[in-house]
Amino acid sequence: MKIGIIGATGYGGLELIRLLHNHPEAQYIDLFTSSEEGIQFSNKYTHLMNIYDQALLPIEHNRLTGYDVIFTSTPSGVSSEILPSLIGRGPKLIDLSGDFRLKNPIDYEQWYQKTPAPLDAIDRSVYGLTEWNEALINQASLIANPGCYPTAVLLSLLPLLKENLIDGENLIIDAKSGVSGAGNKPSQMTHFSETNENTAIYKIHQHQHIPEIEQAISMFAGITSPITFTTHLVPMTRGILATSYASLKPNVNEKQLISALKETYANHPFVRIIEQSNKFGTNQVYGSNFCDIHVKVDPRTNRATIVSVIDNLVKGAAGQAIQNMNVQFNLNQTTGLQQVPLFI
Amino acid sequence: MKIGIIGATGYGGLELIRLLHNHPEAQYIDLFTSSEEGIQFSNKYTHLMNIYDQALLPIEHNRLTGYDVIFTSTPSGVSSEILPSLIGRGPKLIDLSGDFRLKNPIDYEQWYQKTPAPLDAIDRSVYGLTEWNEALINQASLIANPGCYPTAVLLSLLPLLKENLIDGENLIIDAKSGVSGAGNKPSQMTHFSETNENTAIYKIHQHQHIPEIEQAISMFAGITSPITFTTHLVPMTRGILATSYASLKPNVNEKQLISALKETYANHPFVRIIEQSNKFGTNQVYGSNFCDIHVKVDPRTNRATIVSVIDNLVKGAAGQAIQNMNVQFNLNQTTGLQQVPLFI
Amino acid sequence: MKIGIIGATGYGGLELIRLLHNHPEAQYIDLFTSSEEGIQFSNKYTHLMNIYDQALLPIEHNRLTGYDVIFTSTPSGVSSEILPSLIGRGPKLIDLSGDFRLKNPIDYEQWYQKTPAPLDAIDRSVYGLTEWNEALINQASLIANPGCYPTAVLLSLLPLLKENLIDGENLIIDAKSGVSGAGNKPSQMTHFSETNENTAIYKIHQHQHIPEIEQAISMFAGITSPITFTTHLVPMTRGILATSYASLKPNVNEKQLISALKETYANHPFVRIIEQSNKFGTNQVYGSNFCDIHVKVDPRTNRATIVSVIDNLVKGAAGQAIQNMNVQFNLNQTTGLQQVPLFI
Amino acid sequence: MKIGIIGATGYGGLELIRLLHNHPEAQYIDLFTSSEEGIQFSNKYTHLMNIYDQALLPIEHNRLTGYDVIFTSTPSGVSSEILPSLIGRGPKLIDLSGDFRLKNPIDYEQWYQKTPAPLDAIDRSVYGLTEWNEALINQASLIANPGCYPTAVLLSLLPLLKENLIDGENLIIDAKSGVSGAGNKPSQMTHFSETNENTAIYKIHQHQHIPEIEQAISMFAGITSPITFTTHLVPMTRGILATSYASLKPNVNEKQLISALKETYANHPFVRIIEQSNKFGTNQVYGSNFCDIHVKVDPRTNRATIVSVIDNLVKGAAGQAIQNMNVQFNLNQTTGLQQVPLFI
Repeated sequence: MKIGIIGATGYGGLELIRLLHNHPEAQYIDLFTSSEEGIQFSNKYTHLMNIYDQALLPIEHNRLTGYDVIFTSTPSGVSSEILPSLIGRGPKLIDLSGDFRLKNPIDYEQWYQKTPAPLDAIDRSVYGLTEWNEALINQASLIANPGCYPTAVLLSLLPLLKENLIDGENLIIDAKSGVSGAGNKPSQMTHFSETNENTAIYKIHQHQHIPEIEQAISMFAGITSPITFTTHLVPMTRGILATSYASLKPNVNEKQLISALKETYANHPFVRIIEQSNKFGTNQVYGSNFCDIHVKVDPRTNRATIVSVIDNLVKGAAGQAIQNMNVQFNLNQTTGLQQVPLFI
Repeated sequence: MKIGIIGATGYGGLELIRLLHNHPEAQYIDLFTSSEEGIQFSNKYTHLMNIYDQALLPIEHNRLTGYDVIFTSTPSGVSSEILPSLIGRGPKLIDLSGDFRLKNPIDYEQWYQKTPAPLDAIDRSVYGLTEWNEALINQASLIANPGCYPTAVLLSLLPLLKENLIDGENLIIDAKSGVSGAGNKPSQMTHFSETNENTAIYKIHQHQHIPEIEQAISMFAGITSPITFTTHLVPMTRGILATSYASLKPNVNEKQLISALKETYANHPFVRIIEQSNKFGTNQVYGSNFCDIHVKVDPRTNRATIVSVIDNLVKGAAGQAIQNMNVQFNLNQTTGLQQVPLFI
Repeated sequence: MKIGIIGATGYGGLELIRLLHNHPEAQYIDLFTSSEEGIQFSNKYTHLMNIYDQALLPIEHNRLTGYDVIFTSTPSGVSSEILPSLIGRGPKLIDLSGDFRLKNPIDYEQWYQKTPAPLDAIDRSVYGLTEWNEALINQASLIANPGCYPTAVLLSLLPLLKENLIDGENLIIDAKSGVSGAGNKPSQMTHFSETNENTAIYKIHQHQHIPEIEQAISMFAGITSPITFTTHLVPMTRGILATSYASLKPNVNEKQLISALKETYANHPFVRIIEQSNKFGTNQVYGSNFCDIHVKVDPRTNRATIVSVIDNLVKGAAGQAIQNMNVQFNLNQTTGLQQVPLFI
Repeated sequence: MKIGIIGATGYGGLELIRLLHNHPEAQYIDLFTSSEEGIQFSNKYTHLMNIYDQALLPIEHNRLTGYDVIFTSTPSGVSSEILPSLIGRGPKLIDLSGDFRLKNPIDYEQWYQKTPAPLDAIDRSVYGLTEWNEALINQASLIANPGCYPTAVLLSLLPLLKENLIDGENLIIDAKSGVSGAGNKPSQMTHFSETNENTAIYKIHQHQHIPEIEQAISMFAGITSPITFTTHLVPMTRGILATSYASLKPNVNEKQLISALKETYANHPFVRIIEQSNKFGTNQVYGSNFCDIHVKVDPRTNRATIVSVIDNLVKGAAGQAIQNMNVQFNLNQTTGLQQVPLFI
C-alpha cells in the first residue's frame, strides 16, 4: 500500500507515522505539508532519525491521486478544501479532523465557527466509529474519523442506550483529557508552567464534540436528546477518561449493563470491559488502541457511573484511523495495531 | 496562644506548621506523636530546618490540657479515642479527620469501616464549614473540620440549593483531586510510576465524603436526597476541582445563580466568584485558603455546570482549620491566612 | 513604601506581587506595562482577584520618579533603556533582568546578542547577591539582581573557593531547572506535550549565565578560570538543583567544607547547610527564599559533589530582589520573606 | 521459542511482556513468581487483559529447564540463587539484575551489601552491552544484562575513550533518571507527593552502578580510573539522560568526536548520533530501544559535554535483554524491537 499523510507535523500525523512504520502492509509512506516543503522530516523531529528520513512533499492534487490511502490530519477547515476533489479519484480518504463529521453544515458553522465542507462531500462521508459502522466503513471513499472525546464516550454509552438500559434523556458526561489533544501549537493554554500542577475546565458547554456525540447517539441508538458534556485538561500528555452518569431504566441492574457491553464487543478486540478495579485509569491503555470500559451502579441513587479510557492519540485519532483503513482494505482490524499498553 | 498538633508528621500536620509559623497569634507550637517521640522534627523533614527544630513529644493527656488549641490530624479512628476526654478541659479542639463529622454513628461505621466516636462527643462537635457555621464554631469546644472534597462541593452548591435555584434531587458531582489528599503513606495507589501520566477514578460510590456532603446539604439547605459523587486522582500534588451538574428550577437563569453566590459570600473573603474564564483551574488557588467558584448555564439543556477549586491541603484541611481557630478566638478570619495563590 | 513594578505580567512580576502583598512595609504597589495599559490586573490573572484589582499603568518617566523602589522584571534589553535616566532621581532601582549584571559590555553583547546598557549605568550597578555584597547593596541606587542559576551555584561554591578548599580551575556545574525559568511566553520549548515526561539539555555551553557566574567567582573569590556549566529542563514548574564537581585542595576533607559553609552563612538566615539526607531535592525550598546546600566528598576520587537547591522564582528572582530591597532600606532581611517551603 | 520470565510482576518483567508479545519468534511465554502462584496475571495488571491472561507459575527447577530462554528480572540477591544450577542445562539465561555483572565478588558485597553469586557462575557470565560484546553474547549461556545508567553512559563514552579522544582520568558523569528505575515497590522515595515537582540527588557516590561502569570502561577501553558518577531523580516515569564531562586529548576537536561515534555505531541500528539540537531530551527515545547521543565541545574550556538518552525500561533493561536474546539465537538484532519512540 502507498500511503500519503497530509499534516504530518501535527501530533495526529506523528502518531500515524509511529504506528504505520510497523504496519506490515504499509509499503511506503509520503508526507505532505503546506509550509515546510523540502525539509527532511527527521531533521525537524530527530526522534525519527533512521526511521523516517524522507523530505516533506508539497500538496499537489495530481500527485495525491496516486496513493492507495490519504490521511489528513489538519486543523479545522483545511481538509474540507483538499479532499472533496479527491473523492472517487483513487485513494481512500481518511480525515482525522472534524470537517466531515457533522452531517448538518449549520452545526459545523455554529460549533467550529468556520465554513463547512461542500454538502455532497459531507453526504458521501462515513463516520468512522469502527466498532459501530464497519459495513459502511468498508465501502467508504471518505471516512470522517471520530473525535477523541466522542470515541471514548460513544463506545461506552452506545450499547447501553441502544439496548434501552439507561436513560438517554439526561446524560451527564464529564471528560478529562491529557494536553496532547490540544495539538502541537504552543499557546498560553498549553504552556507548561500554567498547565502543570493544574486541573482545569475549559470551553464549558461549547466544545465542538458535543454535536458529534449527539449525532452519533441519534444515528446508532436512535435517541435524540441534548447532552451535558464538559471537558477538563489534566496535567499529563496522553489519555482521556470519560465519566458518564445515567439513570437506569426500570428493573435494570449492573449485571445487565456489563452483559450488554460484553456482548456488544465480544468480537471487537479493541474494546475491553474491565470488571475488577479499585483504581481505573488512563494508563490501562497508554500507547495502545484499546478502549477500556468500567461500569458501576449505585444502589442508593439507581444511577450508573460509566467510565471509559482511551489513548487520545491512538484509539482517539491515528489508531482508529488505521483500524478504519484496515477495514477498508479487508485486512484484520488489528493489523499493525497490536501495541501493548505501556502502563508505566 | 499555645498550640498543640497531634499527627504532625502527616501532610495535614505539615501544612498546619507551614501556616501557623507565620500566624501572629501562634506564640508557640508543640508537636505530638504516637511513634516518633524525641525525634527532632527538622531532622525528619529537613525543609523545616531553622523553622521548626523542636523534638516531637509523646501524647499524654495531662500535658495536652495545657494548650489553648489542639489540632488533631490523624488517620480515621485515632482522634475519636484521644479527644473525648479533653472536651471542656481547656483547649479548643479542632479535628481534621473524619471522626466527628457524621452525626449518625451508623453512617460512620458503614462508610469508614471503623468504630465510631462516643455519641456525646459527636453530639458536642460542630461541623467546621466556616462560611456556613460561624456562630456555632465560635462557641464550639470541638470542631469537626470538613473533608477536602465536601469543602469544595458544599461552598459552591449550598447557596444555590438553599435559595432553591437548582434541583437538589439529582445532583451529579464529579471531583478531581491531586494526590496529596491520599496522605504521606506510600502505597501502590500513590506510587509515582503508576500515578504520573494517569488519570483514574477510584472508590466509585464508596467514598466516605458522600454521607458528609449529604448531611451538610440537609443541615444547611434542608434538602435530603442521595447524591452521585465520584472521585478521581489526577497527576498533580495539590488541588481539587469539583464539577457539579444540576437542573435549574423553573425560570431561573445564570445571572441569578451568580448573584446568589456573590451575595452569599459578599462578606466572606475566602470565597471568590470568578466570572471571566476560558480555562478555570486549580492553580487559581494553589497554596492559598481561597475557594473559587465558576458557574455556567447551558441553555440547550437548562442545566448548570458549577465548578469550584480549592487547595485540598489549605482550604480543604489546615487552612480552614486555622480559619476556624480564628473564629473561635474572635480573631479576624484571615489572620495568618493571607497567602497569595502561587498560580505558577 | 511606594513600590512600582515594571513588567508585572511576567512570572518575575507575578512573584513580586505574591511576596510583596504580605510585606509589612509595602504600603502600595503599582504595576506598569508597555502594552496592556488600563487592564484590570485581576481580570488577566484571576487568581489575584480581591488581592490586586488595580489597573495596569503606562510606563511614564515622570510618574516613575515618585516611587521609593522600582522593580524591573522585563525581557533582556528593556530595563537598559528605562532605568539609566532614573538613577539618582529618587527611587531605588532593582532590575531582575540580565541587563546590568555583566560589567563588560562586550560580554553582554556576545552572550545576550543585544545592545548593552550605557557604561556609566553598568558601572553604578551593584550585583545583588545579598549574602556576598550586603554593604554595597545597602548603598546602591541600582541593583543588578542575580540570575536564578548563578544564585544557586554561587552561594554553594563561593565559600569553598574563597577559602581555597576546592580547585577553581576545573569546575564542572550541571544545573537542572523547572520550566518557569523560561518565563510566561509560550514556545515549542515550553509546550506541555513536549516538556512533560522529558528531561532535556539546552543551550549547551551558550547559556548567558556562564559569564555571570565567572564574573562573580572572580569578584568574590578572586579566581579567574572558565567554568563548564550546563543547563537542563526537567518536567516541573519551580526549582533549580545545581550539582557542582570540584577537586579538593591538598589535605582538605569533607568536614572542612561543611564548616566553611556553616561559618560563612552563620548569620545568613536564608542559606541552610543540610547534612543528613538520602534524597536532597528542590522541594526542600519550594515557594521560599531559602538556598539549601549539601556537600559530599568522594574518598575514591578526592572530589567533592556540591549540591544546592533554590526556588528559581523566589531566591532566584523576586525573593532575592525583595531581600535586597530590605537591605537597601535597613529592614531586617527576612521581612516579608518568611514563607515556609511547601515541600508537598 | 519457549520463554520463561522470573519476576514478571516488576517493571522489568512487565516491559519484557510488552515487547515480547509482538516478537515474531516468541512462541509462548510463561511467567514465574515466588509469591503469587496461580494468580491470573491480567487480573493483577488489567492493562494486559486479552493480551496475557495466563496464571503465574511457581518457580521449580525442573520446570525451568524446558525453556529456550529464561529471563530473570528480580531484586538483587535472587537470581544468584536461582540461575547457577541452570547454567548449561538447556535454557539461555538472561539476568536483568546486578547479580552477575561485577566480576569481583568483593565489589558486589561492598556496593550491593549482599552475598555475591558463586564465583564460577560469575566467571561464566557475559556482560550484555550488546553493541560492545556481540561475539561473546552470541555464545553465552548466562548474560548479565547491563544496568540502566551504565548503558546510557557506556554507549556514549566508550568510543571516545577507546580511541583516546578524551581523558579517562577525570570523568564526571551526572545522570538524571525517571522514577520507574526504582521499581514497582512503593516507598517514601517514590511516593507521588514527594517526587512530583521535585528534582533530587540520591545515593551520592554510593550507587551500585559506579563499579559496573568502571569495570566496563576497563574491559572495553582499557582505562582504569575511578569516575565521579551521580544520580538524580526527576519527576517523570521513563527515561535517563546522562551528561558526561571530559577533557579533550591534545589536538582533538568536536568533529573527531562525532566521527568516532558515527563510525563505531555505523552498523548498530539502535545507537543514533544526533547533531542538530537546541533541546535534546529523553522524549527522543521514549518507549523505544534507541540510545541517542549528542556531543558538544566547549572551545573556552577544551572540554566535551557528551549527552546520551535512553528509555531506562527498554534499552536500559528489557529491550537490551531481548536484543541480547536475538544475538544469542542468531536473529536480526532489531527483531521485535522496532518500536518508534513516542516523543509525545
